[in-house]
Order: sequence, then C-alpha cells, then structure tokens
Amino acid sequence: MKQNELKKEALEYHKRKRGKIGIAVKTPITSKNDLRLAYTPGVAFASEAIANNKKLDRVLTNKGNSVAIITDGTAVLGLGDIGPEAAIPVMEGKAAIFKSFAGIDAYPVVLAEKDPKKIIEIVQALAPNFAGINLEDISAPRCFGIERELRKRLDIPVFHDDQHGAAVIVLAALMNALLLAEKKAEDVNLVVNGAGAAGIATIHLLLKYGVGHITAVDKQGILYPGAPGMHPYQAEVARLTKAKRRGGLAEAIKGADVFIGFSVGNVLTKPMVASMAEKAIVFAAANPTPEIDPRDAKEAGAYIVATGRSDYPNQINNAYVFPGLFKGLLEAGASEINDESLICAATCLSGLVKKPTPSNIVPSLFDKRVVETVAFSIQNSGVCVCKY
Amino acid sequence: MKQNELKKEALEYHKRKRGKIGIAVKTPITSKNDLRLAYTPGVAFASEAIANNKKLDRVLTNKGNSVAIITDGTAVLGLGDIGPEAAIPVMEGKAAIFKSFAGIDAYPVVLAEKDPKKIIEIVQALAPNFAGINLEDISAPRCFGIERELRKRLDIPVFHDDQHGAAVIVLAALMNALLLAEKKAEDVNLVVNGAGAAGIATIHLLLKYGVGHITAVDKQGILYPGAPGMHPYQAEVARLTKAKRRGGLAEAIKGADVFIGFSVGNVLTKPMVASMAEKAIVFAAANPTPEIDPRDAKEAGAYIVATGRSDYPNQINNAYVFPGLFKGLLEAGASEINDESLICAATCLSGLVKKPTPSNIVPSLFDKRVVETVAFSIQNSGVCVCKY
Repeated sequence: MKQNELKKEALEYHKRKRGKIGIAVKTPITSKNDLRLAYTPGVAFASEAIANNKKLDRVLTNKGNSVAIITDGTAVLGLGDIGPEAAIPVMEGKAAIFKSFAGIDAYPVVLAEKDPKKIIEIVQALAPNFAGINLEDISAPRCFGIERELRKRLDIPVFHDDQHGAAVIVLAALMNALLLAEKKAEDVNLVVNGAGAAGIATIHLLLKYGVGHITAVDKQGILYPGAPGMHPYQAEVARLTKAKRRGGLAEAIKGADVFIGFSVGNVLTKPMVASMAEKAIVFAAANPTPEIDPRDAKEAGAYIVATGRSDYPNQINNAYVFPGLFKGLLEAGASEINDESLICAATCLSGLVKKPTPSNIVPSLFDKRVVETVAFSIQNSGVCVCKY
Repeated sequence: MKQNELKKEALEYHKRKRGKIGIAVKTPITSKNDLRLAYTPGVAFASEAIANNKKLDRVLTNKGNSVAIITDGTAVLGLGDIGPEAAIPVMEGKAAIFKSFAGIDAYPVVLAEKDPKKIIEIVQALAPNFAGINLEDISAPRCFGIERELRKRLDIPVFHDDQHGAAVIVLAALMNALLLAEKKAEDVNLVVNGAGAAGIATIHLLLKYGVGHITAVDKQGILYPGAPGMHPYQAEVARLTKAKRRGGLAEAIKGADVFIGFSVGNVLTKPMVASMAEKAIVFAAANPTPEIDPRDAKEAGAYIVATGRSDYPNQINNAYVFPGLFKGLLEAGASEINDESLICAATCLSGLVKKPTPSNIVPSLFDKRVVETVAFSIQNSGVCVCKY
C-alpha cells in the first residue's frame, strides 16, 4: 500500500470516533437505587472498608485490573521526542490492544515533564490507582534509571515495554529463524543497530539466552570498550559484548548472520545486506519505517526478513508481549519479572509456530494462545513449561 | 433502610464486578487491518499530525471528551482524610455518573501526595491528557490555593466540585424553598455550618446572589472578624458576612430562617431546629450521615428538609451540577467559569420544578433536562436564558 493511502486511511480512522478509547461503566447509573449504591450514601461503606484494610481496594474497585501506560513523549515510535500530546494516539492504541487482547484496563498517561526525578515522583504519586505500570516510549538512557528507581520504590510491577517487550518478541522470532537457517545461537554473529531502550534490553536478553557474538552499533558506530560518546548503559553493553571490530554499521555487518535494527528508517542498504553471511536474517524493527524495505532486503539476498509492521510478514512487535505479560503479572499478583520467565515466554511464543517458514517465524498476533502462553510463562518459576 | 442492610448491599454491589468503571475500546482490535490503522504503522500519522499541530489532539484522540477527577483523599465525603486508595470508590462513582449522565469520559486520579505545591506540579504534568480538571475531595484551605494556582497555569477548565457544585445545587434548592416559605433572599437569616470547601464557596455564591444575612459557623464557633483559629479564606468569609453574634451553632441558629450544613453527622439537634424562625428551611448536606435525621428535623418543626442522600426526598448533591457543567465547558471549549453562569445554572435548575412542594424542591436527578440545562446555562454570557 502507498504511504499516502495509508496516511489518509489512518487519519480518517482516528478522526471518525475521535480517538480509540474511553470510559466504560460496568453498571450504568439509571435509577435512584443505582445511585444509592454506587454513590452516596452507599459508596461510603466501600471507602471505609478500604480505609480499614487497604488490600480491599483490589476487591471493591477496578484497581486490580488497571495498568498505567506512562510516557513523557520523548521516544515515540521511531519519531523521537514529539511531546506528550502527540504521544496520545500511540498510548490509546496500546490501551485498545491491552483491552482487546487481554481484557486489561490500561489508562494512557502522557506527561508534560521530562526530568527523570520528577517523573519518578509523579508515577509514585499515581501508583495507588494501578496494579501495574507500563513505561512507554521514554528515551534512553533516562528510561533505565526511571525504571530501576520505580521498581525499588513501588510494590507493583514496573515494566518498560520498549525494552523487555521488544526483547522477548525478537528472541522468539530469532529462535525460529535460527532453526530455519540451521544456525546455532552460540555460533552466530549478530549485529544490533540502535543501542537505545529496545536494543540494549535485547542485547542483555540475547546474551543471557546464549547468543555467542554480538556487535552493538549506535550513532557513533560500533560500541567497544572505550568507544567515544557512550552513556553508562552503552558502556556496559560494550564491556559485555567485547566487540573487536571498529567502524560503523557497514563494518559491523560484514559477514554477520543476523541484523537486528531498533534504529531509524532506511539506514540498512542493499550492499550491506549483500555483505552478510549466507542465509542472512534481517529484523528491521524501526517504526513506522523499517531500516530497509523488506523487498530490498530480499533482493539483496536476505533469507528471512521481519519488521515491526503489521502489514508485512513476520511482525516483530511488542504487542505480542505486553498484554500477556501484564495478564500474567496481574493474575499472579506479582511485582517482579526475571529474565528466565522472559526467555520462557519467548520460547513458548516461538513454539506456537508449528511449522516455521521464512515468511512465518512468529504466530499470528490474533492467535488467542499468544496472550495465554505469555501470561502462563510469566508465572513460571524455575523450569520453563509452555501452556501449549 | 437500616444502615447494616445498606452496608451489606453496597459492599456486595462494589464487589460483584470489582468496582464500577473500566476502559472501553471504541473499535475493538480484532484483525491485522485494525492493528495497521490503530497501531503501527498507521498510528504514526496521527502522532505526526499532532506533533505538527497540537490542536489536532482533540480531533484524533479522545482528549476533548476526557476529564480527570483528581483527589489526594484528604476530605472524602464526610469521612475525612482516608487516603488515596480509600478514595477510589468515590472517584469511580463520579466517573460512572459523568459517563451515565453526560457521556463524558472521566478518569479517576487518586494521588499519594498531599503537598499542595507538588499536587499542582503533578496536575500540570498530567494536563495534556485532559480537556478539563475536576478537583475533588481535597481538604480546605489547601483546595483553594491549589485551584487558584492551577487555573493560572492551565488553559483547560479547573473546577473544584466540592466548592462550586455544592454551591449551585444549594442555591437552586434554596430558590424553591424560599418561594414556598414566602421569604425573600435579601431578608432571610441564613446559617452555614461547616466553613470548608463547600461551605465557603456556597457563602460566596449566596452573597453574590443577594442573600442578606449570613452567619458562618465552623469548629471554633461563629466566624466573625477577628475570631480565633481562622485560615485566610475563613477570615475573608468573616469579613464579608459581618456576623454580629458570638458563640456556637446554638447561638447562631436562634431565629434563623435557613440552616445549611456541610459539616459532619448529627451536630444539629432538635432543640436547635425548634429555635429557628417559622417555616424553617434545613439543608443537612453532610455525607453519608446528615447533620440531623430528616424525621427529627420535621418533628422539631422544620418546614422543608433536604439532605445530600439519594434515599431521602430533596437531594442536595453536586451530581446535579458536575456532569452538565463539564458538558457545557467541553462543548464550548471554554476554560473559565464565572459566578453569573453558576447562578444562571441554579436558576434554571430550580425552574425545572414546575410546582415545588416542601418535599419536592429539586428536579429528579434522572430528569434528562438536568444535564442539558446546566450545560446550556454554563455557556450563557450576560443575560441568563434557560434551555427549558
């Protein structure tokens, strides 16, 4: 589809009903009797009960099914720092997915505040409304400190979707791609382009999973110990990946088996893809414009191509992960997520594709088992057992 | 109905569906095509459009119909400072009324923060999500400063429901009550017991309307210029009302024509009511327990009795006001409310009761014209014209 047509259709879609979500009343208030129970005087008994026992807030209100989607609008899709108002459509989209896929009530919260210290304070003040916090589209490296501090301060799960959601679906897709390419995780040369929130989290999860050779690339080129202009989280990546090469993406990708992009549109050229190893795997996940057009990547010799978009085959999108992940956390009343359960979720997601092919390495996003299997894996402890 | 039965029924009501509101998806996401438009890649065009022209946030998202109900849980109903969690049932109740009565999407926001300066900062950071702010159940005198400062900083309407909502419905009910008692506003002696948010705002509106003699009473007794223990907003009330009497409620109410209570349950005794003037009007609006049981007030000789409860006749409740008020503001895209339009709203509300009787001085809350007439009055400028 032409970009102009998509643009017209998407704007029309958003305009038609003025956005995508609103408030639902569980029992509409249509009589004095409704009012007497839902509002004064009856509501006072619900408030008193919670005042006497805080835990009843999950029984007498919708809090137990409520998640906040919080952003400061600094890293929206691949569009960058476009501000809180412009982030609302993405947050409403996530909320619509949360509800449609997992029945979770997710509330968009865009913030006109960029100071990490103040964002932490605000989220802490908002926490009593919610059973979980989904941080979203907050730029790196600020997002790492915000997430870490909030996890310390709050007793509800805090999950930065751009990091962990992206990492899980990439790992799931990679498992099937490696199977098809008959390559082993410990042997492959893998390049991650874009060492922001998603890139860094993906590198950590892939290392944990056992990927042998990872080269991280960001604006300044290959990240190696001592490379210029790195923030501490990139320096940590450089230390862990021990890159031996120097240069930019072109140098990094020569002979590589896998390219994973969380950067910006059109930075991966056909000659770069052509320089990769045989049966090259290209995950061009930048949104809305991939690092390379999938047709160009194929023409340049890529064996498997995936993007973040729903209108191409092999969608690598965190929509596979966040609904089920929060469903699992809310059901378990859990407040922490560990790498083992994220790897288990990826394993079980990849297992939903019974016969992977180069254009079919992830399950359908509308397969009802996707949410269920992620929710189930997240609650796993110790040995990974898949629901399906 | 016995309190115990009501308690059981109300708790059961809240438990049954785990609270009263959730998120509604305008178009459920069930296909790749939905996803392509509502989420990536289509959503990027909506975000870009808003980034280029902020005003489009009201066209492409639900913001234009969204209101925040913000509280710090310090003055919840008549229950006092019961904290943010215990305030959630009341906020959900208001949200259910907003949606059921006026189609407005209102989002409960309870804050674990009591410092007025920080509350102002938080609300300012949250403002881009909403087309209006409904401050709720914030204790006096803090609420006055918070409201004033937010009105200065924000370009969307900020309305402290406990103040202005209460004032409007009290004035509406008073108009009909005075009509029945054949008394004139400028002549009556009127006592307001409880000089908190609702009491002080009501006094200001009644003075503006032309009520001749008002005596304000709070915990320390009658508020007169120089009375001990007053905060600046009470001192202003003392200055404006020029009370000549000294003493407590018993002294203030002797010979009074009207009692208006925004205090706590059971502080108005039968002897006090008996000491009032003929055709005494008693508005016992404390929630959930009125200042006096309506039967006791009647027995002591009151001519007209009203309470804040939906299970007695003559309900004086801000639910008459806030849905229509925000509907009017959102429709007009207005950001300010003046006293003239509040008095107009009260006038038109009272006019909906074609034949007032002592047990029927306010319209039914479920009369569809209530929301419409308030919405219409709020948009009035200059001369007050009622919709009906």
